[in-house]
Amino acid sequence: MKLIVIGGVAAGMSAAAKLKRMNRDAKVVVYEKGDYLSYGACGLPYYVSGENNDHTKMIARTKEEFEEAGMDIFTQHEVVKVSPERKQVMVKNLENGDVFIDSYDKLMIATGAIANKPPFPGMNLNRIEILKTMENGLHMKEVVEQNDVQNVVIVGGGYIGIEVVEAMRYAGKNVTLIEHEDRILTNFDEEITEKVTKEMKANEVTLRLGEAVESFEGDGTVTHVLTNKDRYPADLVVIAVGVKPATKFLEGTGIHLAKNGAIIIDREMRTNVEGIYAAGDCAEVYHKVMQENAYIPLGTNANKCGRIAGANIAGEHQKYIGTLGSAAIKAFNLEVGRTGLSEADAKRLAIDYTTTFIESTDHPAYYPDATPIWIKLISEKGTKRLLGAQAVGNKGVVLRIDVLAVAIHQKMAADELGMVDLCYAPPFAGVWDAVHIASNAVKE
Amino acid sequence: MKLIVIGGVAAGMSAAAKLKRMNRDAKVVVYEKGDYLSYGACGLPYYVSGENNDHTKMIARTKEEFEEAGMDIFTQHEVVKVSPERKQVMVKNLENGDVFIDSYDKLMIATGAIANKPPFPGMNLNRIEILKTMENGLHMKEVVEQNDVQNVVIVGGGYIGIEVVEAMRYAGKNVTLIEHEDRILTNFDEEITEKVTKEMKANEVTLRLGEAVESFEGDGTVTHVLTNKDRYPADLVVIAVGVKPATKFLEGTGIHLAKNGAIIIDREMRTNVEGIYAAGDCAEVYHKVMQENAYIPLGTNANKCGRIAGANIAGEHQKYIGTLGSAAIKAFNLEVGRTGLSEADAKRLAIDYTTTFIESTDHPAYYPDATPIWIKLISEKGTKRLLGAQAVGNKGVVLRIDVLAVAIHQKMAADELGMVDLCYAPPFAGVWDAVHIASNAVKE
Repeated sequence: MKLIVIGGVAAGMSAAAKLKRMNRDAKVVVYEKGDYLSYGACGLPYYVSGENNDHTKMIARTKEEFEEAGMDIFTQHEVVKVSPERKQVMVKNLENGDVFIDSYDKLMIATGAIANKPPFPGMNLNRIEILKTMENGLHMKEVVEQNDVQNVVIVGGGYIGIEVVEAMRYAGKNVTLIEHEDRILTNFDEEITEKVTKEMKANEVTLRLGEAVESFEGDGTVTHVLTNKDRYPADLVVIAVGVKPATKFLEGTGIHLAKNGAIIIDREMRTNVEGIYAAGDCAEVYHKVMQENAYIPLGTNANKCGRIAGANIAGEHQKYIGTLGSAAIKAFNLEVGRTGLSEADAKRLAIDYTTTFIESTDHPAYYPDATPIWIKLISEKGTKRLLGAQAVGNKGVVLRIDVLAVAIHQKMAADELGMVDLCYAPPFAGVWDAVHIASNAVKE
Repeated sequence: MKLIVIGGVAAGMSAAAKLKRMNRDAKVVVYEKGDYLSYGACGLPYYVSGENNDHTKMIARTKEEFEEAGMDIFTQHEVVKVSPERKQVMVKNLENGDVFIDSYDKLMIATGAIANKPPFPGMNLNRIEILKTMENGLHMKEVVEQNDVQNVVIVGGGYIGIEVVEAMRYAGKNVTLIEHEDRILTNFDEEITEKVTKEMKANEVTLRLGEAVESFEGDGTVTHVLTNKDRYPADLVVIAVGVKPATKFLEGTGIHLAKNGAIIIDREMRTNVEGIYAAGDCAEVYHKVMQENAYIPLGTNANKCGRIAGANIAGEHQKYIGTLGSAAIKAFNLEVGRTGLSEADAKRLAIDYTTTFIESTDHPAYYPDATPIWIKLISEKGTKRLLGAQAVGNKGVVLRIDVLAVAIHQKMAADELGMVDLCYAPPFAGVWDAVHIASNAVKE
């Protein structure tokens, strides 16, 4: 059995490694467009900032390690076409331009996503960057280290935008964040983003909300960002306005794609075409609470779904138990996390929901340095079944979201979680933990 | 309806407050032997150490606040006898020695536990102390602040013993810990306690394991501790060798007590006598995994069971969902936590179990200051159902035990927890969290 894997980062290498562990005799060929395999792209902001100066730490396993495990690895090789009826792919060697055909018994598509680049006038100027791949990160760090780079404008206040804001402040830059929505981190509800906005301002970030970029100015290299309201000097611009599935090469193959281009898969990671699997940011993912597919391009889903795809390619029939859209971000001295449905999700799904918002602390005041935690819960009206949770605070926030994630995954009602025996010790938690207090505050 | 509450700390005041919230007209009379109500005794070590210098921070609500809520509060009043057939209690005013009778419609027994004091010769010397009540804490702090108190010997390496060891080191004392078992924290398995032992030694604690105290020497005030192996100078001795239920006054009342003296209650906190409820350290508690009562004297259970008792006294029929024996302790730079069954528990219950022990980190190496976490899982052989978890490490340990607590409470199998969508962000967790890695390492 021969598997071809298209894309060698998270989902692709998870599938390849799992298959090889289960079936040593399987032939595995990986085509990766870039130079790097199996790396934690979420570490890039901390490499750019200088908090981590060794980019190899982000690499889980090297090309050589995968080769030792018996795989054939081709970096700088892009699959430009898939022919399901012939079970073939057309591959382009990006180093020399050669094009060749390869055949598979099974195919794993894990091409990930590509960063959106809106067609603003001036978009092609130097020092207008994205932060998506290792190559982007290596390049951006070089730019950041230039002494003449002082004013950095970040376009987009999502996860990446906020992490880059923090990275640039850490690197000592003047930072302006431009977001066309009226608030940042719109995957979170307003009660939470309000705290993050305050933290941004406390860290001298110039926030421009409800403002739209119109063009970039410069002579070869960017010098200014023009919006519908103002004009900002910029030695470096980082565009962080979301991603889209890297699936253009699949058009016309008969592989079903969703409206946004994401590959439609079932819970076993199978596309509609026999023998072709997909997972990661190029594909949809089954959502445990929504009970339907969603597009949630996160490394968490990619790694889990990739591993399941590998097992199923080996002959199993594992089903993904489903994502919760759990996500966390550090914003200066704040931890911010979410899992399950946001209030906006619940509205969109026409669920009869209740929201609960509480302030508690990470531990009791009789141990030093207690800090506030704010928790918002979304629950089903009547049953009090937990559907979603968000939290923000200085310490102990993200792991409490994990506690809530397990509860939401298990369809627990707030009343029950409010009585589960969680740990109590003054340095870590109160006798009624913040999770209890939030759960027990759900009124209907 | 008139409720008498015996004991005004955790379970008692939780019951009283819950009843008053549900039934404003209920008459509530509280008799508390000591001076303080409703305080977090777990904060005492950090008061003794000087990390917290305000003992009132440990008090959740004062006598005056409870009185404002409409309760009749009597401190320095000890209930010395209960007559269920007459629905009466005999009360002794400890300030003036007066004894009187009071009558109840319903009775809540929440007398807690008393510290064990083995009858060692010399036990009555000055500066041989226990740390159980607020009064103990206030007194111990005064002793600790004496300049001539340099050598402190702690007898017993359980939760309190270890916390006192840390407190005394924080206060700059020379500390010797004597434990008659061959390891400390025997509620934890050896893989975990080994790390704590190492941490103790790194913090210059003299550990004497497998050594038994035989007597104390001194002229009025203790000067030396004699064991079966050696003799240690001591300016202060702290005895921390466990507690027993404070139920001696119930003997002969017909209220059923377990072999160790703990009040036998059902999941609604009812004793065998109609109208008499009990909860907290004086009583047993229903264990979710064991599916039977156990004696686990912790504030977590006391507060939850007390609240449920209050609701049921008000006429409800709430059942406690059960304790997991979740507990956490800080030991210098280590967080240590447990939930569910230990390996010793599983053995005693004749469960066919598997253990899994892994080392991971709190977050990936590509963000600074990643630290190791060790997790041990106890699971049911065959089904891989999670039965217990223990962990130790520098950061992010206790809240991960909470994640595992919810999973164990929900009877999750390791395979499922290994795929639950937990948060990933480099400062907080890897894409496969330590909890995932432990769960996915369960082999059978």
